[in-house]
Amino acid sequence: MNTQGIAILGSTGSIGCNTMSVIESFDDGRFRVVALAAGRNVVRLAEQVERHRPELVAVEDEASAEGLRAELERRGVGAPRVAVGEAGLVEVATHESARTVVSATVGVVGFVPTLRALEAGKRVALANKETLVIAGELMTKAAASSGAELLPVDSEHNALHQCLRGERREEVRRLILTASGGPFREKSLSAMAAATVEEAMRHPTWSMGAKVTIDSATLMNKGLEVIEARWLFGFGADEIGIVVHPESVVHSMIELVDGSVIAQLGVTDMRHAIQYALTYPERHASAALPPLDLAKLGALRFEAPDEKRFPCLRLAYRALRAGGTLPAAMNAANEEAVKAFIDGHIRLTDIPLVIEGVMDQHETRPVSSLDVVLEVDRLARAAAAIRIRLLSEGTKAVA
Amino acid sequence: MNTQGIAILGSTGSIGCNTMSVIESFDDGRFRVVALAAGRNVVRLAEQVERHRPELVAVEDEASAEGLRAELERRGVGAPRVAVGEAGLVEVATHESARTVVSATVGVVGFVPTLRALEAGKRVALANKETLVIAGELMTKAAASSGAELLPVDSEHNALHQCLRGERREEVRRLILTASGGPFREKSLSAMAAATVEEAMRHPTWSMGAKVTIDSATLMNKGLEVIEARWLFGFGADEIGIVVHPESVVHSMIELVDGSVIAQLGVTDMRHAIQYALTYPERHASAALPPLDLAKLGALRFEAPDEKRFPCLRLAYRALRAGGTLPAAMNAANEEAVKAFIDGHIRLTDIPLVIEGVMDQHETRPVSSLDVVLEVDRLARAAAAIRIRLLSEGTKAVA
Repeated sequence: MNTQGIAILGSTGSIGCNTMSVIESFDDGRFRVVALAAGRNVVRLAEQVERHRPELVAVEDEASAEGLRAELERRGVGAPRVAVGEAGLVEVATHESARTVVSATVGVVGFVPTLRALEAGKRVALANKETLVIAGELMTKAAASSGAELLPVDSEHNALHQCLRGERREEVRRLILTASGGPFREKSLSAMAAATVEEAMRHPTWSMGAKVTIDSATLMNKGLEVIEARWLFGFGADEIGIVVHPESVVHSMIELVDGSVIAQLGVTDMRHAIQYALTYPERHASAALPPLDLAKLGALRFEAPDEKRFPCLRLAYRALRAGGTLPAAMNAANEEAVKAFIDGHIRLTDIPLVIEGVMDQHETRPVSSLDVVLEVDRLARAAAAIRIRLLSEGTKAVA
Repeated sequence: MNTQGIAILGSTGSIGCNTMSVIESFDDGRFRVVALAAGRNVVRLAEQVERHRPELVAVEDEASAEGLRAELERRGVGAPRVAVGEAGLVEVATHESARTVVSATVGVVGFVPTLRALEAGKRVALANKETLVIAGELMTKAAASSGAELLPVDSEHNALHQCLRGERREEVRRLILTASGGPFREKSLSAMAAATVEEAMRHPTWSMGAKVTIDSATLMNKGLEVIEARWLFGFGADEIGIVVHPESVVHSMIELVDGSVIAQLGVTDMRHAIQYALTYPERHASAALPPLDLAKLGALRFEAPDEKRFPCLRLAYRALRAGGTLPAAMNAANEEAVKAFIDGHIRLTDIPLVIEGVMDQHETRPVSSLDVVLEVDRLARAAAAIRIRLLSEGTKAVA
């Protein structure tokens, strides 16, 4: 057995910590953490460095680098090489000892490093869905030309990857993504308009970071996943469906041309998908991963999604159908709108308004290069900021 | 595309008619019915002969052969060669134009012809579960030495076959068979003791023949399926579980070593599994097969099986663990007990008593030959008959 070098982008976040937990559950030397990139949580990062002694770490800025060095000194741990900013992320993503890169930063920041990892032929375990949403074409092309494998860590796409094993593409009619429905599944539009950040953060089944939890409350998370699925598996907008499933036990399904449906089920623990991606094509037993007890669960419910209360779904399908740079514009507007909601500037129901406004004024172009994508991202954020300011003033006037 | 010659054992029964329906839904000449075997339903058989013009048919006895000829003459249809009895079944099962044999007779009568089909290297689409229960070892050995494929038509095993595609045997922890729970899922033992044949025939989700419907009411059907799964897929008694799932939408599941569960779902229509077996390894779209609408279904329930009210489950696991001829003895006793219940001689709850009595007195031997199996079958039926007579007199005494 060869040791597999692992680099983690976003090591102190939710997926990053779960990845650490999976790696630590194998005591056979199968995995070795060679490089870590985090933002500013230098205390947790120092702890990870102490346990795994990577060759390289990256942090967001010089101040964090100083903080990390100080924290390591306090612990009596020799500091590895510390890189900074996007360049640091790229260094981690392309580190020569890394066979697999876990891409788990949140939002657009993971985009360039993930692309570089694919270009370098690394196996990428992808938890950062925005990466495929904004530039799926560039990503999949890079993977194809370097021969890099792209393995999804998102539980839904990981489930689809498992369901598609042993099936032929032309015999699969469609993908069916499940959605928990979020905390507002049974709430009225007016209740959603009045929702606090705290209410929106109460995800019924998964424990995740703030951005993805708010995306789950608006169902934009599912919209992004539909676009992600398009690039991972090569299905069109009409071949990707969504069903609301509050228990999040069925992680997703495929429907075959003969009407048969194959589903992947499991407990709601991200370590399952992470381990699957790290050990693929093998599967390994793990005492850390609890088995599923269906009889204990009792019932699994399914219902159609409501595009009226969750317009983000409609917007995501619109972006997917239009293609080109529209998904990137949509994603940037969403990131800004979510931040503005968390910061108390706009209402939850304003998020789709911000996004739709930005999409309406966006002139869609082909995703011809990295620069095009980054420019669209920048412009869409600026356009979103204007709309957020207007809505924010409106909200204050009402309040 | 080569035309695939199909022979059907039990063509006028539930599975047989559904097989006809699947074949007729393909108008591209992919399938051709070359041989049919039925019991005594000569009117339906004549109709099938008129539509498909097979080269050979087989019926139960000379009287039925006469009846079939008369019926064909009435219709102005030239009679094909008509064979009779078990020799006729074997002739159909080994017919040289048949590439695939659908084994859909009920009970032990399908045993020898199915074995002969496997020995002749035919692909066998197996709906007759008793065949594997009583002599799984002989069957799988015959298939292995001739290179014949054995494809399950039972919806549960067909589901397992689909789930296992793309997975490695050593990475599968266990099989999980779903059971509808039958009409007495929520009934008390005393209600089951008083159950009429009519009540027992009311299967909640599947429309099937009488024997298998009664087996579903006692859950012996699931017990037989556990043994069937053992031979089809090579899993031991401790690696095959059962979960009660009243909606019968999840047809069965596998649990992988990493805790992931893969399930196959579909509408409750046997044509799905039959088509899968006939077209394997391909899948084909079919307008005749309705897709699954989970949102419309609402909820899928799961619960643990109750061995106290359904002792047949315990008996089947006991037979599987003991191995050898015990499953054959159990199966024979069950067939006789079910017949006695349908004929009004014993109560539903007497069925496991008959079986357990026969099993207790059976001396288990290895399944070394066909003759051993047939002798065990004969002796177990005789032993069952004695117990049935005693119970029947008891029932009458009480009544």
